[in-house]
Amino acid sequence: MIQIGVIGAGSCDGALKKIAEEVGAEIARNGAILLCGGLGGVMEASAKGAKNEGGTTVGILPGDRRSDSNNYMDIGIVTEMGHARNVIIARSSDALIAVGGEYGTLSEIAHSLKMGKTVATLNSKWEIEGTLKAKDPKDAVRIVLNGISKS
Amino acid sequence: MIQIGVIGAGSCDGALKKIAEEVGAEIARNGAILLCGGLGGVMEASAKGAKNEGGTTVGILPGDRRSDSNNYMDIGIVTEMGHARNVIIARSSDALIAVGGEYGTLSEIAHSLKMGKTVATLNSKWEIEGTLKAKDPKDAVRIVLNGISKS
Amino acid sequence: MIQIGVIGAGSCDGALKKIAEEVGAEIARNGAILLCGGLGGVMEASAKGAKNEGGTTVGILPGDRRSDSNNYMDIGIVTEMGHARNVIIARSSDALIAVGGEYGTLSEIAHSLKMGKTVATLNSKWEIEGTLKAKDPKDAVRIVLNGISKS
Amino acid sequence: MIQIGVIGAGSCDGALKKIAEEVGAEIARNGAILLCGGLGGVMEASAKGAKNEGGTTVGILPGDRRSDSNNYMDIGIVTEMGHARNVIIARSSDALIAVGGEYGTLSEIAHSLKMGKTVATLNSKWEIEGTLKAKDPKDAVRIVLNGISKS
Repeated sequence: MIQIGVIGAGSCDGALKKIAEEVGAEIARNGAILLCGGLGGVMEASAKGAKNEGGTTVGILPGDRRSDSNNYMDIGIVTEMGHARNVIIARSSDALIAVGGEYGTLSEIAHSLKMGKTVATLNSKWEIEGTLKAKDPKDAVRIVLNGISKS
Repeated sequence: MIQIGVIGAGSCDGALKKIAEEVGAEIARNGAILLCGGLGGVMEASAKGAKNEGGTTVGILPGDRRSDSNNYMDIGIVTEMGHARNVIIARSSDALIAVGGEYGTLSEIAHSLKMGKTVATLNSKWEIEGTLKAKDPKDAVRIVLNGISKS
Repeated sequence: MIQIGVIGAGSCDGALKKIAEEVGAEIARNGAILLCGGLGGVMEASAKGAKNEGGTTVGILPGDRRSDSNNYMDIGIVTEMGHARNVIIARSSDALIAVGGEYGTLSEIAHSLKMGKTVATLNSKWEIEGTLKAKDPKDAVRIVLNGISKS
Repeated sequence: MIQIGVIGAGSCDGALKKIAEEVGAEIARNGAILLCGGLGGVMEASAKGAKNEGGTTVGILPGDRRSDSNNYMDIGIVTEMGHARNVIIARSSDALIAVGGEYGTLSEIAHSLKMGKTVATLNSKWEIEGTLKAKDPKDAVRIVLNGISKS
């Protein structure tokens, strides 16, 4: 099954949470598995959206305890590797959607592009050559599914 | 849900494969998720056993491609981290079952014991203080579920 | 002793190599240790510059063999972790200088900024908020030494 | 230059410290670089021994701060990768000497043997097939240098 990564900050405002939740829901509706960093903010909201639509969610955690996970992750991968877990998220995702995001998200975007993955962005402060700007959550999922089908 | 790691060599004889397959089946029958290294041998056999019983399987791969995975993994975590992925398997598993195994398996046993996890062994060549020798696959799953319930 | 990371692409043109070599030389002249990814291009040129001035050099390699290293690294750290070695370079450096660079360098810049490190850039195609643009190699080393002294 | 890893527990009694210190001294006398985990116990004692003989020392740290290092490491590699740093020590060492040691050391021995490296042991509680028991520190260094020259 297709694995789509959702990346974004561990804390964010309500507007961004709503977007992330809709991204997760749309991933689930398309029958794909949602991968994320397993913590709060964009990660939690997207996982919540996926679970609301009966999807499957995988959290790739930076710390050494599965209990760090938010409550919407079916599976917890405990890396104990801090920021290096961002590389695992990028590698494990067939394509990625960045929702907002700060430096951590930028590192994931960079790793993903270096690996040749499709990266759609929503409300990104970064304008990185190679990413694809999406109009809304549905458009973001459409973009990454399209990218995967061509790869 | 409980996550049980199955560790063992990437190639093994038919007798060990049968044991690994039965371990995977028993994990699925108990409603737990099976984690393994996603490659061949004990990993593939245990995942096959779990899928035959309708279980969920997660492969934590050492290389940089999801396509390295055997055909029985629902989810593929692509670590691109070689032997360090053994640490992630140990960390992500609530308890572990070692089936046979060489030096790679020994490293996973050592990491798991260092982390305070229950480790049951089947047909192990290693006699490491702290591991629990199981009589058969059913016994191995019983031992690790018992260890998890006490932790 | 101070450890300064030099990041940049594994292959580059002669002009960039000259800049990287001068960065490495200036690091050595200031008595700091040079850290880099241990491969070609900017990494090799900067290490060559440091060795020409009698400096100490450390290569943090992505592969599984020390022999992947260029010929100017005193010490080889063999991570076997692919792109995740970028995180180790960022973490191990007291401050960093980016010379040119593509997506891999961008990921290192992002990780470094996330960790609160000073990052000076030379001939960068990326305009990332938080990095400090240097006029020349001497200026880059001055910027990072200044950043370290304040942290 | 040859890189020899010294592995062992982060805290140990005085007798083991004396052995570790002599191992470090002997590594330095042979002109090799000492690699270790950079923390206390066997790691600190061996690094102290190497520095007393004018050697070069590299600490590969599990945490996210160089300041976790003991006072005898010339170079600090900050992995932020917990137990996975053991894999990096094994990979980066041309051969290894285990002094005493618990489960963490066992994992390093296992990773090292899996990678085909020579591993000499001193006062080890583990009797692992493939390791070479040394009589004393001098003998341990002789064993690993011999192993390296044949590889």
